[in-house]
Amino acid sequence: MKVLFSNTSFERLKEIIEPLFRGHEVRYVNILEDPRPLRWAEVLIKGTEPFTAEMLSLAQNLKMVCQWGVGVEGIDIGACSANGVFVCNVPSINTGNAEGVAEVAILHMLLLAKGYNKSQENLQRGKMFSPRGLTLWRKRISIVGLGNVGMVLARRLSAFEVNLVGVNRSRKMEFDSLPLTQFFSLDDLSAAVKGCRFVVVTLALTPETKGLIGEEVLESMDENAFLVNVARADIVQKRALERALKERKIAGCGFDVFWEEPPDPSDSLLKLPNFYVTPHIGGTNDETLKGIPAFIASNVDRLSKGELPISCVNINSIRKAT
Amino acid sequence: MKVLFSNTSFERLKEIIEPLFRGHEVRYVNILEDPRPLRWAEVLIKGTEPFTAEMLSLAQNLKMVCQWGVGVEGIDIGACSANGVFVCNVPSINTGNAEGVAEVAILHMLLLAKGYNKSQENLQRGKMFSPRGLTLWRKRISIVGLGNVGMVLARRLSAFEVNLVGVNRSRKMEFDSLPLTQFFSLDDLSAAVKGCRFVVVTLALTPETKGLIGEEVLESMDENAFLVNVARADIVQKRALERALKERKIAGCGFDVFWEEPPDPSDSLLKLPNFYVTPHIGGTNDETLKGIPAFIASNVDRLSKGELPISCVNINSIRKAT
Repeated sequence: MKVLFSNTSFERLKEIIEPLFRGHEVRYVNILEDPRPLRWAEVLIKGTEPFTAEMLSLAQNLKMVCQWGVGVEGIDIGACSANGVFVCNVPSINTGNAEGVAEVAILHMLLLAKGYNKSQENLQRGKMFSPRGLTLWRKRISIVGLGNVGMVLARRLSAFEVNLVGVNRSRKMEFDSLPLTQFFSLDDLSAAVKGCRFVVVTLALTPETKGLIGEEVLESMDENAFLVNVARADIVQKRALERALKERKIAGCGFDVFWEEPPDPSDSLLKLPNFYVTPHIGGTNDETLKGIPAFIASNVDRLSKGELPISCVNINSIRKAT
Repeated sequence: MKVLFSNTSFERLKEIIEPLFRGHEVRYVNILEDPRPLRWAEVLIKGTEPFTAEMLSLAQNLKMVCQWGVGVEGIDIGACSANGVFVCNVPSINTGNAEGVAEVAILHMLLLAKGYNKSQENLQRGKMFSPRGLTLWRKRISIVGLGNVGMVLARRLSAFEVNLVGVNRSRKMEFDSLPLTQFFSLDDLSAAVKGCRFVVVTLALTPETKGLIGEEVLESMDENAFLVNVARADIVQKRALERALKERKIAGCGFDVFWEEPPDPSDSLLKLPNFYVTPHIGGTNDETLKGIPAFIASNVDRLSKGELPISCVNINSIRKAT
């Protein structure tokens, strides 16, 4: 098939992309600067650029738009559906995204549990067998948000023989297979975090979850509890968190995200000894680099064989129309 | 029963110990300074001090010696057996030791996989989504030494959906239940490490394993591989490792142990950017602090009810004699 990558930065990944798309014709064009190749394309693979109804009108041969990643908010899905064009994304699970983010959550949990910063100080001072850390083993841990990341995390943590509490907006059938000892609705978050040594945030950011973790939830957490956030910083109220840490309402934090990215290195939160931050590295790893294009390539192959694509967000609209 | 703790430093753990030994008489005496209370004791609970045949001869009422931990090398086991005195230790599994050490191994794996030091530099420089780390997911990992720590580690790592290679001196029945894709004998270590992204050392230090990992094994490792050691530093030849790191024969290391403890802060190995060290914190955690005395207390309870103790290293010698 004729496969158009929507910007030239994909060309840097050529060595990974081209073996996967063998048997197809591949072009890399910045479609915001030069939309003409859209006429040629049967498949468009796009990054963060928008894909509007106007651009679609230029793409008479287009059969499928594939998002490089999960978020399809830049695509005019209605227009695509009306024209019988499949819109597909890449699920975070099994492509290295959910797996990588869950691993970074566990890194933060272990940094906090073992007192890594303190251990490095002790090493400098010649002090061994110290600090006396915690095990994750046997601790009560709540996972707030049971999407792909939360579910992948639950499966990994359960091997540490912990006591897992799941929190989600609604209870879904698929949670039955998770190793949870208890389930709470998001409305009962303050009750869910009580008695937990770790609270790990894996929620999507929505108007409903923005600022969800503020004074009330932080007050409900145990004084020896740690908060880990690998989702979006804005789910947590920054000033309330800073206060809770300074007043020792909670014992520490680990964030792979920040309110302003990149964070200002002089931000007072970064100076707190029990605040670990990593620069949003959960989804950036060797496996996503292979997993995302491989998933898209398999969808292109399906389409070329006349099969329906998978992870298609508008499949029902198109089916109804045909 | 009459329970004697062999040194007064146990007295500091009084608040943890005494509720566990309710119903028994407990004394704390430094038996090297004052061996007389040995005559009184029915159970001796000891730390790292020796317990010799001479000391045993003073302990006419003694029925059991309990080591606070795994290693019973300081006890004259032959003399104890000849006198019908049980010698018991505390297994590392289920007491927080094996579990804690396995967690510190995973901490080191994640520090290396995610490039934690580099991530902290990037944060200072305002660089996000970088470094591009690795997932543990889908990597080939060899665990060298399948004792308690190795087995606990294998179960935890398998939840990360990795490809696990087990290495041990001999193959045991209990390995059948482990999620290994391949098994190698220790004699084939160089073959076992080939193609592994992580090599994790969880072996006991013995004359046979001392210096086991030297130039040959390090040369057999992949150039992008990481070496993690949560066992004893002397299993690895220090100079060979330093050379391998400097010549980029391997990609990095994580050690919870060191050749001289505490390490000299000016040691050149500590200055290498891809060498993570923690101050031997694997077995020092909240759970061992409770798990070890709880295990010993349950053995004292067994004995007081006329049952045989568990984790008894000389039970067969005593059985034969009676």
